[in-house]
Amino acid sequence: MNYSQCWLNYNPIDNYEDRDMLSDIGICIATNQISTIIENAVSELSYALKRMLNINCNKEYMTEDDQYEELKSGIILRLNTKDKSGYNNEGYSIKHIDKTVRIEAETESGILYGCFDLIRRIAQGELIRGIDIMEKPKNNIRILNHWDNMDGSIERGYSGKSFFFKNDELIINERTRDYARLISSVGINATVINNVNVHGAASDLITDRYLDKLRIMADIFAGYNIRLFLSANFAAPIEIGGLTVSDPLDKDVIDWWKKCVKNIYDKIPNFGGFLIKADSEGRPGPFTYGRTHADGANMLARALKPYGGLLIWRCFVYNCQQDWRDYKTDRARAAYDNFIGLDGKFDDNVILQIKNGPMDFQVREPVSTLFGGLKKTNMILEVQAAQEYTGQQRDVCYLIPMWKEILEFETYSKHGGSRVADIVSGRTYNQINCGLAAVSNTGNDYNWTGHDLVASNLYGFGRLSWDTELSSEEIAREWAVQTFPHNGKVIKAVLDILMKSWPVYEKYTSPLGIGWMINPHNHYGPNVDGYEYDRWGTYHRADRYGLGVDRTVKSGTGYIGQYNEPNASMYENKESCPEELLLFFHYIRYDYRLKNGKTLIQHIYDTHFEGVEDVEEMIKSWESLQGLIPDDIYERVRKRFDIQYRNANEWRDVVNTYFYRKSGINDEKGRKIY
Amino acid sequence: MNYSQCWLNYNPIDNYEDRDMLSDIGICIATNQISTIIENAVSELSYALKRMLNINCNKEYMTEDDQYEELKSGIILRLNTKDKSGYNNEGYSIKHIDKTVRIEAETESGILYGCFDLIRRIAQGELIRGIDIMEKPKNNIRILNHWDNMDGSIERGYSGKSFFFKNDELIINERTRDYARLISSVGINATVINNVNVHGAASDLITDRYLDKLRIMADIFAGYNIRLFLSANFAAPIEIGGLTVSDPLDKDVIDWWKKCVKNIYDKIPNFGGFLIKADSEGRPGPFTYGRTHADGANMLARALKPYGGLLIWRCFVYNCQQDWRDYKTDRARAAYDNFIGLDGKFDDNVILQIKNGPMDFQVREPVSTLFGGLKKTNMILEVQAAQEYTGQQRDVCYLIPMWKEILEFETYSKHGGSRVADIVSGRTYNQINCGLAAVSNTGNDYNWTGHDLVASNLYGFGRLSWDTELSSEEIAREWAVQTFPHNGKVIKAVLDILMKSWPVYEKYTSPLGIGWMINPHNHYGPNVDGYEYDRWGTYHRADRYGLGVDRTVKSGTGYIGQYNEPNASMYENKESCPEELLLFFHYIRYDYRLKNGKTLIQHIYDTHFEGVEDVEEMIKSWESLQGLIPDDIYERVRKRFDIQYRNANEWRDVVNTYFYRKSGINDEKGRKIY
Repeated sequence: MNYSQCWLNYNPIDNYEDRDMLSDIGICIATNQISTIIENAVSELSYALKRMLNINCNKEYMTEDDQYEELKSGIILRLNTKDKSGYNNEGYSIKHIDKTVRIEAETESGILYGCFDLIRRIAQGELIRGIDIMEKPKNNIRILNHWDNMDGSIERGYSGKSFFFKNDELIINERTRDYARLISSVGINATVINNVNVHGAASDLITDRYLDKLRIMADIFAGYNIRLFLSANFAAPIEIGGLTVSDPLDKDVIDWWKKCVKNIYDKIPNFGGFLIKADSEGRPGPFTYGRTHADGANMLARALKPYGGLLIWRCFVYNCQQDWRDYKTDRARAAYDNFIGLDGKFDDNVILQIKNGPMDFQVREPVSTLFGGLKKTNMILEVQAAQEYTGQQRDVCYLIPMWKEILEFETYSKHGGSRVADIVSGRTYNQINCGLAAVSNTGNDYNWTGHDLVASNLYGFGRLSWDTELSSEEIAREWAVQTFPHNGKVIKAVLDILMKSWPVYEKYTSPLGIGWMINPHNHYGPNVDGYEYDRWGTYHRADRYGLGVDRTVKSGTGYIGQYNEPNASMYENKESCPEELLLFFHYIRYDYRLKNGKTLIQHIYDTHFEGVEDVEEMIKSWESLQGLIPDDIYERVRKRFDIQYRNANEWRDVVNTYFYRKSGINDEKGRKIY
Repeated sequence: MNYSQCWLNYNPIDNYEDRDMLSDIGICIATNQISTIIENAVSELSYALKRMLNINCNKEYMTEDDQYEELKSGIILRLNTKDKSGYNNEGYSIKHIDKTVRIEAETESGILYGCFDLIRRIAQGELIRGIDIMEKPKNNIRILNHWDNMDGSIERGYSGKSFFFKNDELIINERTRDYARLISSVGINATVINNVNVHGAASDLITDRYLDKLRIMADIFAGYNIRLFLSANFAAPIEIGGLTVSDPLDKDVIDWWKKCVKNIYDKIPNFGGFLIKADSEGRPGPFTYGRTHADGANMLARALKPYGGLLIWRCFVYNCQQDWRDYKTDRARAAYDNFIGLDGKFDDNVILQIKNGPMDFQVREPVSTLFGGLKKTNMILEVQAAQEYTGQQRDVCYLIPMWKEILEFETYSKHGGSRVADIVSGRTYNQINCGLAAVSNTGNDYNWTGHDLVASNLYGFGRLSWDTELSSEEIAREWAVQTFPHNGKVIKAVLDILMKSWPVYEKYTSPLGIGWMINPHNHYGPNVDGYEYDRWGTYHRADRYGLGVDRTVKSGTGYIGQYNEPNASMYENKESCPEELLLFFHYIRYDYRLKNGKTLIQHIYDTHFEGVEDVEEMIKSWESLQGLIPDDIYERVRKRFDIQYRNANEWRDVVNTYFYRKSGINDEKGRKIY
């Protein structure tokens, strides 16, 4: 096999206390129909028990409900479609009663998730004795976005080539199934396999040229409760339909999409729907025809509606032809300005997919103002597991803590609980079509994610999308225990590395929320002025006195005014503005004193020196694991750390030198600045 | 025809006073052999006289010398191989005696150049009555370097695709001949048709795969006294020869090259030789085997020697993996440091080709120290007609004044005349294999050079390589008069634009010799820090107090010490250092007063504002020609000026803003800086 199993290794667990309890019993399936999902669940559970505990399972199938009562021992999977009281849809319960462990659910997918849950608990050494839990996902939509191109490349992909596409053809093989197992095991229930920038052959994915093969893929996914979505080209009626326009109010265009969608569902009854990037960074959209994004999204949504399909519309819309001389236009404002006026105008199977911050997946950004702004619109929070701006899977950067902060952010959109987590779960406004999306960090590298340690981001995204209340540490521990041999020292070191990795990356890169300062195009490595005189709206405005972007209402771009109170006032005032975002919201002098008494410039110097020292510590920590973990993993990660160390050094020296040259202020500690 | 004839338009000349004198007479050819060169000369002359003066020529051929004496009228082309006294090799004389104009030369090429000279004089309205001149080229080697790749692209090409190569095949068509006519008309006698970076199929050019077609091309060129050269891959013995090394002292390698060269000359007896870029920017070379550049060059030269072939070896050797933190390593030193120790060690058919400055074709550089250093080595001065760093043929930049300054530079290498012009002509050290090379600015665009006005650089290079004593104005006038309709206003405006174009480009780009500040990779448009923290050795070291690179002996990199006295002392002291090179040699504070009383920072602001204003004036000047010149030329140039204007604005604003932010010093005139 040319790829690893990541956290589905099912390493043997020695001395598991409940082994004896489980060893005698078999797995009994009780359902009135044997479905692929149930078969996959049984197969996964028996495989895992064999690998982890060396328990051989007997499989028994029962079709009559009353047979259950007679079962005196076993792991009993019971599909209970009658009892709607306890768990709904994808939820499940697990109970230990006498000599049985009973997983019950309303749906087959619930059974599947219950099995993965049981496996996860055992894998972590958790005792099953006396278990009595009931689980259901916090979010209905838990979706991956793959930016895979049909030539096999991956936009912002750092883990090799696509395992979905090659030479304009689909790839379907054993890895397709193992991909489904991996992401299903952490609760992901939908995936968009092609890049949001739909070019070339990718426009044809929605046509007969590909639908038969897509159905095979969709069926494999469906066996793991994963719905297949496609990114579609808003200009498809022109590019592949031969029409002269793609105006969403044009009758021919509407008819074309209806036929197109009907044809898709004829072939792929379980098709999820479309993801659309429109009027963004050169992509076509409704603006061309003087139509709104609501016009565009609703037209497509109505074509999907009869089949239960969803239409996911990205809000990453801004002017990418900005003039750096213009201090008033603010890219941060763009998503809100473009969409807030459309609140309530979207059909109920339309979902707006909103990036976590107002810019673009920087190492530190405030929360997008749309989450606190929209009240009558379905929303998905989009995060990026692919580390485009956070080290590109060469530098380790565990992103769950960042995502947690975003989810925990209180928007004050509604009295009594309107954190981002509440809003995107649908709880705040009683919505169903909501959830979390992540731009995937996967590719056909042996270890799936380029850097072994950042498989934790893929794992963590799934777990977090299922339960946004899990802590970053819990997720990291879960992942580490399932990935590495059961050894306390290993787990401790890995957790330590993961938990400090985001703060460390932030330390040696761009300070206090200003973002960017990165090499244009490839987005790796320092280039302080790289985007400073460019057209992308991404400026730091550093001069000899200070730096930062004034986004206040009083004297700046007014972006802060898009926040609800008291957030707006908190950000508006330098003193109350969280310091980690100080330069995002304010222009600050180098000699400004931060709360810890340090000047801004000294903070920049200190964090950059510390960042490199922290990397050195992480490396030492990793090196202490040699021999305790498989050599191939050790070596792969060790090599990545060499790259990260060089990168951190380069960032430290370039950023410090840049600001030293500009400020002329010496480092208090007299360290080497060039 | 999908291309223009540039300065070989031969526009009709009204009221030419000597028309009557010339109208009666025919062209008589006297030679004991009718050769292709002579035929081409006759054909060109009769075509030109027909077009310009509507004179039909009779052609008479004589084989007996005494028949000349009987000729009483005509333009008499006389190949005088006996009389070696007056003109040598490629020289010629033109005399008006009674009713004859006599062009005499020792060689056929002399006759050809004499004909082009006569045409040029007539085209400029110069009277032929009483002419009595003798001309010979100042430089023996006058060579173009094309950086054309075999896929049809051109490295640093801004005039379309290659007209030599497409899809790994040679292109030979009517344009091949017209190319030869164009460059021969200005005296160029050699050309390297493929990129010095020899990749892929280009490595095979020296093999049978291409030699038959190359012979056809070489023969076309030979008809215009142009020798075909090829760039060769130093690793060819490995890449195409199947050897394991390309060590220049390895017997198998030596034999391989001998066979290779013999095979080339079997097919192409008039082959010129090789151009080699070795151990430079990733190209293979003798360093790999611990050999010197002399070892590498001599080995190849000895293979070429039996056939009269030349080996041109580029001196563009430097460390392109420099660390920006390192203030002591200086790329400017590299060529000298690498080659000075080898002076006298090269065979006499080896020529070192040396870029004009120590860096890389910046808008302003001092003269390379190698010219004043080497005394026992053949040298070619390499300039770049392709405007890689000087506007890329979108911005007009007439480069002859720059090249003149270089040629006029007194190196003090030898008492009594050792200007660069003296050295590369071979006069100073009595050398034969010397001359001038230009990286060509041509491509398959309709007008050959992308921007119509910079065909003047191609024209000018040829003329200058023939006669380094011509002035920039003379050359510009010659070119303009032959290119545009005979109209005083047109010529005046074009001359005005050309003569100010280099200073204007310098004004709005990088100041006082510091260079770079350009977008990495594509080398167009401003990016002050673009190469500042990179590995290319190209830094400006700007901080909040000033900028510039200290290259003094006293406190800097010591580069200045490579110059002979009194140049070294002149550069060493800020006060005597020519101000246009001040920042190349010294770190200067923003408040330093230049000789005109302005501070450095005010000079930066002023020149950048002026540069844009100058472009506006150039545009007005051009617009005044609408209707006076062909519409297609007018429009093409007008569009280029729009691009140049935007570029100049961007440079002005980025550079001024950058230095304003860094220095904090206001523009005295209160103009807009962002």
